[in-house]
Amino acid sequence: MTRTSDDSWVRPVTLPYPSLGDNTADADRLESALKKALGTRTVHMDLDLLKQLPLCLREWNYRATAVLFKDPAGNGLLTHLAPPDTTEDLCGLAVDLGTTRVALRIIDLASGTRRGESVCDNPQTALGPDVLTRIHHVEKPGGLNRLNRLIIDGINTQLLVLCTRCGISPEAIHLVAVAGNTAMTHLLLGLNPRWMIREPYIPAVNRPGVFKATELGLTVHPNARVLIFPNVGSYFGGDLVAGILYCDMDQREETAILVDVGTNAEVVLGNRSWMMACAGAAGPALEGGVTPMGTTAGPGVIDRIAIDPDSLNLDIHTIDDQPPRGICGSGVIDLAAGLFRSAMIDIRGKLLPERCADRWSMKDGMAHLTIVPADQSATGKALCITQADLDSLIRSKAAMYTILETITDSVGMQPQDLERFFVAGTFGAYIDPASAIAIGMIPDLPLQRYHSLGNSSLGGAARVLEDPACFDRINQIRDGITYLELNVNLDFMNRFSAAKFLPHTDNSRFPSVRSPVDR
Amino acid sequence: MTRTSDDSWVRPVTLPYPSLGDNTADADRLESALKKALGTRTVHMDLDLLKQLPLCLREWNYRATAVLFKDPAGNGLLTHLAPPDTTEDLCGLAVDLGTTRVALRIIDLASGTRRGESVCDNPQTALGPDVLTRIHHVEKPGGLNRLNRLIIDGINTQLLVLCTRCGISPEAIHLVAVAGNTAMTHLLLGLNPRWMIREPYIPAVNRPGVFKATELGLTVHPNARVLIFPNVGSYFGGDLVAGILYCDMDQREETAILVDVGTNAEVVLGNRSWMMACAGAAGPALEGGVTPMGTTAGPGVIDRIAIDPDSLNLDIHTIDDQPPRGICGSGVIDLAAGLFRSAMIDIRGKLLPERCADRWSMKDGMAHLTIVPADQSATGKALCITQADLDSLIRSKAAMYTILETITDSVGMQPQDLERFFVAGTFGAYIDPASAIAIGMIPDLPLQRYHSLGNSSLGGAARVLEDPACFDRINQIRDGITYLELNVNLDFMNRFSAAKFLPHTDNSRFPSVRSPVDR
Repeated sequence: MTRTSDDSWVRPVTLPYPSLGDNTADADRLESALKKALGTRTVHMDLDLLKQLPLCLREWNYRATAVLFKDPAGNGLLTHLAPPDTTEDLCGLAVDLGTTRVALRIIDLASGTRRGESVCDNPQTALGPDVLTRIHHVEKPGGLNRLNRLIIDGINTQLLVLCTRCGISPEAIHLVAVAGNTAMTHLLLGLNPRWMIREPYIPAVNRPGVFKATELGLTVHPNARVLIFPNVGSYFGGDLVAGILYCDMDQREETAILVDVGTNAEVVLGNRSWMMACAGAAGPALEGGVTPMGTTAGPGVIDRIAIDPDSLNLDIHTIDDQPPRGICGSGVIDLAAGLFRSAMIDIRGKLLPERCADRWSMKDGMAHLTIVPADQSATGKALCITQADLDSLIRSKAAMYTILETITDSVGMQPQDLERFFVAGTFGAYIDPASAIAIGMIPDLPLQRYHSLGNSSLGGAARVLEDPACFDRINQIRDGITYLELNVNLDFMNRFSAAKFLPHTDNSRFPSVRSPVDR
Repeated sequence: MTRTSDDSWVRPVTLPYPSLGDNTADADRLESALKKALGTRTVHMDLDLLKQLPLCLREWNYRATAVLFKDPAGNGLLTHLAPPDTTEDLCGLAVDLGTTRVALRIIDLASGTRRGESVCDNPQTALGPDVLTRIHHVEKPGGLNRLNRLIIDGINTQLLVLCTRCGISPEAIHLVAVAGNTAMTHLLLGLNPRWMIREPYIPAVNRPGVFKATELGLTVHPNARVLIFPNVGSYFGGDLVAGILYCDMDQREETAILVDVGTNAEVVLGNRSWMMACAGAAGPALEGGVTPMGTTAGPGVIDRIAIDPDSLNLDIHTIDDQPPRGICGSGVIDLAAGLFRSAMIDIRGKLLPERCADRWSMKDGMAHLTIVPADQSATGKALCITQADLDSLIRSKAAMYTILETITDSVGMQPQDLERFFVAGTFGAYIDPASAIAIGMIPDLPLQRYHSLGNSSLGGAARVLEDPACFDRINQIRDGITYLELNVNLDFMNRFSAAKFLPHTDNSRFPSVRSPVDR
């Protein structure tokens, strides 16, 4: 049974009966009622809906259930009409269009409840694992079309499976909201992203707006509309705009920060009055790419490590408690924090052979630290971390902290002043903030100020489908963001150098982190 | 060579080059410039234009020629992009969608000049000669689709011929404006008009707005937009709205009237402050349908008749000076005026046998007047008018005058007060106002107040393509019209009875018309 309310894109409408004294046409009669319901100046309907309208209104006694949406110009859209008191499935689809993974969530539009969710690999990975290789693939003959077909077909396939599982038809999807980074969004729309990676880094479009699903080739209801979240630039995508919506930064009195870490770290700082954003290369350390054995989270991957500072024993946790076969970002950060706390590395992150004892070895001119001996690992080989891996982590954590320092400084704040620290995505879900603080990656805030958001890109896309009031906030958020270009920031390199120590050259910033020499 | 100006839908644009300090996306950069040029809050572009945009802008050095349009909600539309200083044909198509005839005119969008024009029969005539039979045809299986295909294919065929003649491709047509009566407009859009002819006479739509040409099946440029003129109701169509635009009634200080006479007489009275409209059955007399020999204008058709009041000789003029084969509306009105002036009919329109002499005869119980003897006619038969024909004409002219009297009275005016009298269409082009005044069909105004507009529906549609400033006036005109329902007007029948005399029971209204008895 469809519940409808003012807080939903699904609205019941009851029209006054036409008469000689009120002979407004059917479409204009309906539009007038819908404009009032939606608070827009106009409500557009497609020609094929218009063709059905006169008979439907008469069969339904001038009552109906309307599925509505908007375009970013503030025009109302009627995407579907159902009988009054219908029991028909009227659903929306939220899409987090990630470079690596694509997450789908089906929402019941009337109630706002979740009908189902799934995550799959982005099938474009077959042509390139990351944004850059995919943009390069576009240069090949047919490359753009190939990448476009892969993601469209991929979403259609994944959606069909998900719909089958939920017992609904893909035709029951009337609204779609897609949040992704700027490059993935371009590939979804079939737009050439080649100028995004060439100075001065110009996307084809910042505010793609709302499309018909059929224009994009998505096999949902033919009249369905697809909202593509706007980007702020080539390096600040709609996924982040969705994240801001999801954590309500644009409505908070307090100043909050939202951090999304992948190959790039994307950061937004702000409150309901202003928002400042930047993005920078934080290094691949935090995606698990830092070490040869580094990997993304999965069964057998080390996600937690604790080191006893006295016995120097490593207490290792693997996902699903499988034999260890690699280490992910959160494991690497725990490891570095533990090594530092137990004085097995110095403040530059260099392995100290005496303290590391048997775990230390020199191979091919490079210091190694054994984490899991060969006889205990799933691969039959020892799991090691090298000095180069640790150096890379130090650069990554320094970059991360420097980005946070630069953006807070740009508004006259200190990193320690942050009232709320939202961490998006996998990084936020797995990482131990105490470890990240211990190595000086994130500011030394009370732990309760840290909040892991999960998939905030998917969450933000879903919110637009659950609550029409969120729609207008999207472009307001996008237009309200001041983007800070780090490439042209002169202080950045000085700050970066100062942050390349554990936890920092200025230890007073990390009062909770006791240096091993204090012990 | 394309001339572009602020008064045209074709605009040259020069964008600021992107830089690190101004890294707005290509589409948003272009939109920003076009919004300024068009004065709209947004400018939408289709996905396939967006796909071409980045390469085009770079090839053209961030300059371009834009073809723009609007939708009635006030959103700008970019329909085509051409290189700067292009010599490409950028054209618009104006369509007068008449029940009987369809007129096309191709306009050069940049200069506003006329490239070509043609008129053809409405191919729907094959399924029904008039609005009513076509609406009844819709009830047959496949009827609506058949009527829709006929008019769409008919326009496409006629356009191809016209384009070939003008040396342009149909793909050079980027904007289309269609003005037609409400029923023809519905059939063009594939909308069922069945409820228009059933109380309370509700069309499917009053303000159809702007469509993509491909949605309608028109074979012009695939991104072209089609504006369908709005109607005020089932009996007051977009052709009249176009006519008001064409004669600028909505901008005049003086109060003017616009009369379009076919099977129905449609009348608008007003000035820049207000407009009042009504429509009523004026009888088929004025379309030439009044007599068995009546016909529409064409070679050999009598369009002018003068009668010498002394000799009672008929001076007949035929179109193209061909032997007479019928008589059209203007000829019938001239005839009636001549008969009245020469006292061959009385003030009730009854033939006076003594005065008609040899021309008078009685056949099958009906008085006849011979206009052309058998040996002088093209058909080999005498061309006659019967008493029934004259009675029908009297009813028609009485209806016409009563409509004019009712609408002027509704705003406290007399028909004689009209400052400007616009007559639209064939009726206006052929009729002799002096004859129409003589029989009391139209008010006894100085002849210089009468203006024949020609095809004002086509003219109004063309104006929207020639001058963007006209676009916003369309819905303002439509919304500014107060429609007077004659069916519910109690005074109408009394006035009608008084008007069924020549020129009127109240002769003081027609001081210029001397009664034959005054001679």
